[in-house]
Parts: sequence; C-alpha cells; structure tokens
Amino acid sequence: MSASTEQEDALVTSTDPLHPANLISELCASFYRLGWVTGTGGGICIRTHDKVYIAPSGVQKERIEPSHIFVLPYPQAEPSPHTDRIFLRRPKLNLKESACTPLFWNAFTIRNASSCIHTHSQNAVMATLLWEKEKMFRISHQKMIKGVRIGGNGPTLSYLDTLEVPIIDNTPNEEDLKDSMKEAMEKYPRAAGILVLRHGIYVWGDDWQKAKTQTECLDYLLEIGVKMKLAGLPTVLNI
Amino acid sequence: MSASTEQEDALVTSTDPLHPANLISELCASFYRLGWVTGTGGGICIRTHDKVYIAPSGVQKERIEPSHIFVLPYPQAEPSPHTDRIFLRRPKLNLKESACTPLFWNAFTIRNASSCIHTHSQNAVMATLLWEKEKMFRISHQKMIKGVRIGGNGPTLSYLDTLEVPIIDNTPNEEDLKDSMKEAMEKYPRAAGILVLRHGIYVWGDDWQKAKTQTECLDYLLEIGVKMKLAGLPTVLNI
Amino acid sequence: MSASTEQEDALVTSTDPLHPANLISELCASFYRLGWVTGTGGGICIRTHDKVYIAPSGVQKERIEPSHIFVLPYPQAEPSPHTDRIFLRRPKLNLKESACTPLFWNAFTIRNASSCIHTHSQNAVMATLLWEKEKMFRISHQKMIKGVRIGGNGPTLSYLDTLEVPIIDNTPNEEDLKDSMKEAMEKYPRAAGILVLRHGIYVWGDDWQKAKTQTECLDYLLEIGVKMKLAGLPTVLNI
Amino acid sequence: MSASTEQEDALVTSTDPLHPANLISELCASFYRLGWVTGTGGGICIRTHDKVYIAPSGVQKERIEPSHIFVLPYPQAEPSPHTDRIFLRRPKLNLKESACTPLFWNAFTIRNASSCIHTHSQNAVMATLLWEKEKMFRISHQKMIKGVRIGGNGPTLSYLDTLEVPIIDNTPNEEDLKDSMKEAMEKYPRAAGILVLRHGIYVWGDDWQKAKTQTECLDYLLEIGVKMKLAGLPTVLNI
Repeated sequence: MSASTEQEDALVTSTDPLHPANLISELCASFYRLGWVTGTGGGICIRTHDKVYIAPSGVQKERIEPSHIFVLPYPQAEPSPHTDRIFLRRPKLNLKESACTPLFWNAFTIRNASSCIHTHSQNAVMATLLWEKEKMFRISHQKMIKGVRIGGNGPTLSYLDTLEVPIIDNTPNEEDLKDSMKEAMEKYPRAAGILVLRHGIYVWGDDWQKAKTQTECLDYLLEIGVKMKLAGLPTVLNI
Repeated sequence: MSASTEQEDALVTSTDPLHPANLISELCASFYRLGWVTGTGGGICIRTHDKVYIAPSGVQKERIEPSHIFVLPYPQAEPSPHTDRIFLRRPKLNLKESACTPLFWNAFTIRNASSCIHTHSQNAVMATLLWEKEKMFRISHQKMIKGVRIGGNGPTLSYLDTLEVPIIDNTPNEEDLKDSMKEAMEKYPRAAGILVLRHGIYVWGDDWQKAKTQTECLDYLLEIGVKMKLAGLPTVLNI
Repeated sequence: MSASTEQEDALVTSTDPLHPANLISELCASFYRLGWVTGTGGGICIRTHDKVYIAPSGVQKERIEPSHIFVLPYPQAEPSPHTDRIFLRRPKLNLKESACTPLFWNAFTIRNASSCIHTHSQNAVMATLLWEKEKMFRISHQKMIKGVRIGGNGPTLSYLDTLEVPIIDNTPNEEDLKDSMKEAMEKYPRAAGILVLRHGIYVWGDDWQKAKTQTECLDYLLEIGVKMKLAGLPTVLNI
Repeated sequence: MSASTEQEDALVTSTDPLHPANLISELCASFYRLGWVTGTGGGICIRTHDKVYIAPSGVQKERIEPSHIFVLPYPQAEPSPHTDRIFLRRPKLNLKESACTPLFWNAFTIRNASSCIHTHSQNAVMATLLWEKEKMFRISHQKMIKGVRIGGNGPTLSYLDTLEVPIIDNTPNEEDLKDSMKEAMEKYPRAAGILVLRHGIYVWGDDWQKAKTQTECLDYLLEIGVKMKLAGLPTVLNI
C-alpha cells in the first residue's frame, strides 16, 4: 500500500461512530430494515465543510463498510463532457460512486444542504401513483407536518400549513433527473423533498440528523396519506 | 466540570438497566422500531417518588443517551407566566425538555401516574380520522381489552366492557393540549388514554411497565379497530 | 437462601440455550417482535418427560428471564375446588403462573404435545371475525398447508388437503376456555390448532420446534386467508 | 470422529463470514425476518466453482448453523431411479437436503447461476392469485425494474422494459416442480425468476449478492404490483 493510499484511507477510517463513513454504513443498514433501500437502491450522503462522503452504486446498502465510501472535495465544478468529477478517495474495490451523486449535489448547491437521502419507500411510490395527475402530493392537518422544514432547510412548518411535495417524472437513467429535480426545487422553494414518479423520494437537510428526521416525517405523511386516500378520506382540509 | 454538575450527572448515571435514564433510552429505541416515535416525535417519561425523568424535545428518539435526560423535582407548582419549571438537572447539550412535559404532568397530577407514553402510531391517527365525528374510539368484545385498566390506574377492564378512548382536537402547539386533555381526563374518568386528532395518543400507568403494556394493548385495539372498520365490521357489539 | 430454594432454582438455571427456561425467554422475545404477544398476552410452554415449564401471567413477554419460570411435575391431576396445582418451583417474585396453563394442559393430555403456543396475532383475530359464522377457518391449495400436521402431532397435511381450524367462543376468563377447547379438540381430531373468537389461537406440537413452526405456518395461512377474503378471492377451491 | 469426517466438516468450517456455510446461516436468518422463510420453508443455496452448499429440509431456517449444511460436488449427473445424488458432506444430524435441491439445480444448469433463492413471500403468493389467469406477472414503469437482470444473469432491464415473471402450477411434491420450472425457464429466457402458484418464487443470480438483490427487487415489484392491482391501478402502461 502506497503512502498516498494510506492517506486516502484515513479519510474514511475513524473510531468515532459519528464519522460520516461510519454513519453512512450504519444508517444505510437502518434504512434497509425500514424497506427504504432494498435491492441496492437509495442511500444517504453526508457533506462536511469541504468534503462529500458518498456510498457506491449497485451494492447491498445494508452491507456497506466505511472502506467502501467515496470522498469528494466540495465545492467543485459540475462534471461536463470535458471534465471529470474530482475525488479525494475512491475505494479499492471495483466500484462506481452512487448514481444519485448529481441529485445529492442539487441539494448541496441549491439548498446548501449537508446531507441528502434517497429512498425507494413504497409509501413514496404509491403516493406518486395516487397523486400522479396533480403532480403534487398534498396533505394538511397532521401533527407530523411540524417535523418538516420549509424548503428542507428553513423553519419548520406549522400544523396549519399544507405540506406540498412536487412529483417529477422518472427518467431511464438516474443522473438525468438532475435538471428536472433542480427545476422543481427552484419552482417550489418551500418543498422539503422531491418525489420521483414510480421511483421514490429525495429529502435533504442542514445535517444528517435533520435529513433523516425529515425523511421519517415525510415517509410517515406519505404512508398516512396513501391510507387516507384508499379509505376515501380527503388528505387536505379546507377549513 | 464543577462539583454541582457532577452531582447532577449522577442523577442519570447508573449501571442498573432499570434506572429511569437507562430505561427511557432503551424504551424509546424500542418504540422507534414499532413506528411510534419516528421523526423525533413521541416518547416516554418516568416518575419516581420525588423525581421526573424526561427526554429532550426534537431529538432522534432511538438515539437518546442517559446523559440527555432532564430531571425535575416532583411535585412542583405549574409554571406560569411568572414562574419557571424547576429542574434538578439539565443535559449539557443545547436541549429543551420534551414539549410533552405539561401533558405528561397531567397524567401525574390527575391520575397519580408514574409514567406516561406518547406515540404518533398510525393506528392511533387512523382511528382518530375514522371515529372523528363521534369524538370517541369505541371497541368491544376483544380479549385485549382485558389488558387495559379503568382510568389507566384502576382495575383492569373485563372482556364484557366496552373500551372508550376520547378524541380531543389537536392544537398547533403541543403544550396547548394541556387544558383539553385535562378536561377529557376529568370528563371520562374511566378512560385509560387520550387520543389526539390527526396526531397520536397519550397513555399512562402506575409504573413504566403498566404504561407500556397498556400502550401496547390500546395500540393493538386501535389497529384491529381500524382494520374492522375498513372491512365493514362493527367494532361494538350490542349483545 | 435455603437449600431447597437453591435446588428449585437449579431447575431453571442452565448455560444450555436449549434449556426450556432459556428457550421460553428467547422465544417469547422473538414472538413479541412478530406482534404475537404484546401487552403481556400469549406465550409458549414447554414440557419435558416429567416437567412443565411455564411463564408467569401478566408480565412483559419480551422481558422474561429464566428465573421467572414456573416448573410443574407432569403428569398431575387436574386442580379442583379441593386440590391445588402442584409446583416444583415458583419464582421468588410475586407472580402467578400463566392463565393459559389449563389450556396448555389440554394440549399435553389430549394430544400428548410437548409444547403449546398461544398468540394474539391480529391475523388470527381477523380470521375469527371473517369466518365467525362458519365457526371454522378453511383454506385449501396453499403450499404452506404442508407445514401443518394432522391433529398437530400426526403426519403433515398434503397440498391437496383443506386446512380446517375450529373457532370457539371467547370467555371472560381465560381458564374457562378449557372445556370448550377440549370439546373442539375432540370433535375435530385433525385440527392442528384452536382459534378463539376475538382473541387468538392455540397451537401445539410434539416438541417446541414443531409447535413453533406450525404456529408460523398457521399464522401465514390465516394472514393470506384474510388478505384473500378481503380481496374477494375464495380461500377454498372445489376442484 | 474419524479423519474423513473431520475432512468433511472442514468443508463447512470457516472464520470467514463470506464462506458459503456461514452466509447461508446468516442470510436465512435475515430472510426469516423478512417473512420469506417462516415455517421451515424457502432458503438459499450457493455454488462455488465445483461445490454446492445447501441447507437441510424441514428445519427452522433462522436457526441454521454452518454444521447443518450439505456439500455436493458440481457438476454431477441428475439422480435417477438407479442413481443417487452425490454428497461431499452430510451433516451428522438426521437431516435430508432441502426439497428445493432439484429446483436450485435448474438454475445452475440452465442459467449457469451460482446461487438460487426460494421464498414463500406473501407478496409472491398474492401476485400468483391476482395474475392467475394470465399465468404471468407483468409490471412496467417502475424504477426497481432496473435492478433485475434479463434471464437473471444478463444485463439489467431498463426502466422502459416490462418485467414478466411466469407463473407455473404448484405440485404436491416440491421436487415435481423441476420439469415445469425448467420448461418455463426455457420458454421465457428473459425471465429472472419463476413464480409458483399459491406457493412462492424462485430467483437466481451469478453470485449470492446478485441472487439476493434480484430477489429483493422482484419482491418489491410483486408487493407494489399487488397494492396497485388492489387499488385499481394498472400495473402495465402502454405508452
């Protein structure tokens, strides 16, 4: 092992359970148990002041180890046909960074987020199907709305606010969601997440705790919204 | 660290797994796995003879550590515009006590409870929606009714009793539920818990074991009640 | 601690994870996670050649410790108004043996079972409601039927057999189910379990493994049966 | 213990958590928690270059130990009325190899798979009932389709592909599924799994990771497909 590689490995090696490389491994295993990231899909990325930690693409998310994590410098210019994404560390295994990387980056650049979560929760997918025509999931008068922040990074919503989560169309390649996600984030600055039709949801936050707890709140609201709709109950009250 | 702080920390430091500070941490993690306290909501408080142990507000309930716990003397006068709540110990972190504190206090003062649990269980929320007009969840002829105590602190109900759990309206601020919860507890002295519309449930007991097992029984009954109602089965038999 | 007590404690003290006292603790915790024994209800008892191991009544089933277990000699005469049940060991705590004891005993004496399980699974309760009129749950043409033994202790059923589980009425006191359970077991000698209306199910087997795996098969069949009925699919095919 | 037995035991003894005998034990316990292999049914087999590792029949799948595993040489001729299946190692206990063995072998010989998984997931069984007439489960326009490989061992499907999983009739004896499974695999070379009516699903892959993640993707798609059908939503879009 060369000295440079040892330096790179140090970026993901820590006894601190709150180190991003350890957290990503632990949280992905926890998300697997929730049914959010089965079949290698979904995950979480974490950004510190000047570094981004991202899991590999196409691996079992409940079996990630810290040594599998990619580290990228932040900020950096978008990769283009003529430039590559810059890495501080790539895992030794034959791995590629998560296909969600450009989507996670949207959360960093547009909302200054420090963490972004992507799930394939069936609650999210069912909601995109049941609210497909409106292209917007809406629910009001639920206590759990208070756990969601305006824009994902602002003050929390009030119980009297109606939660709105835009639904964008899916694309055959995950990376190609980048522009429509960006567009939806700019068109709906109060949205705390973006639903992707027949696919899942992206949620972000100022730190991993806020990203995670907002994902839990949104998933709860999507689940109860789907149950209410199937039971014939309106999810938005006009009172 | 000053001597007084060491004394304060001793209030939540114990190798006994049944110490309230340890129990709150463990039970909240268990409730998280049941889907009762996701998104930082809900929790449990425990009162010993002269002390109340309460978790912080707005934290991930499955990651609470004993050092995060607040300790308050009991009894104490209600805080008013001119008086503050009195604490024996506040965690060093920048934390506020659970917003459920005044609601938990209702259970202590009105029913002499030693523990109170608040969940956002979707079974509870769905029941408040399906029994919204009656402002009362009712179910009869279920074995699990026998696990619920009259008033939450009396003898257990019989299989032949009809369980009734009042539903109060939600308020934008959790603290503002205090008066309507108190009113419902006094109007329905046999009720073992209070449902909050579009929000969740409060359940109490003579000790943490009784509070927890009654919460399990009520959650079971809310779940089966919702299933029965959606399947077109009556939840109360008049026989 | 007297010598006799030490002798008694030895009955439930073992480093062998397959000792009945250890198994009951472990299996009850596992059943709790399946939602079978929440709210202190339900459980499992295990009989060796000449001893019966039974958990206490009214305790949190996921927190049982081997030292909480009752040990009884087997066989023994039924307790009557003039005779008491005989114990080899009672836990020191102020505990009473499970209220299921006479029901478990039915399985020992009528079917020569060595283990009996009682659950409050919602699949069982929903099935008793949806098949209430027939007083019999029936399902055919399901692979899982092959995991169920005729009478609970005979050869396994074939895929071509129709599974039938009788439903008896519930009684306010668990003990009072004894006679109607006995009657149903004798009337339906092929039944591998007895459903109790609005309450749960009793399942037994030649050993704890067979009792447990048959409970899993029956619970699976009750769950899929309820799903099929609610989806308008017939659970019995006449072909 | 004879020398030869020690040699045989060495085949299933390893401190490497990724050794097939260790993996089968761990993965079966994980599948149990997903509800895929309760009641002793279902499981996973793993093939290395020249050996096949298979769990016993009729045992609790969440309690398998590496010492319970059968090892067979690969390739070998099919057993016939005049020949027996050849083993490199049989566990000492009175055990028989999984009844799925000939079905797993189909995956090895027809698709050159190195691992095959069989589940009794209720999502699979409900799908076989709801798509019984078509004898084919079909779903399109779901992100999770991208996790499934053409034929189970080829390139992954695109979001624009329609997933098709054939449904074969069940037989009273598991072994008798061998020919109809083979027939379906040859008739539908693009199928990544075979559903068995009122029974479950078989899924395979180039290695255990691919078999497992494809089983997760297919199970997800079966679950969402059942939900969509019951909600009146079409699972295939013609656009």
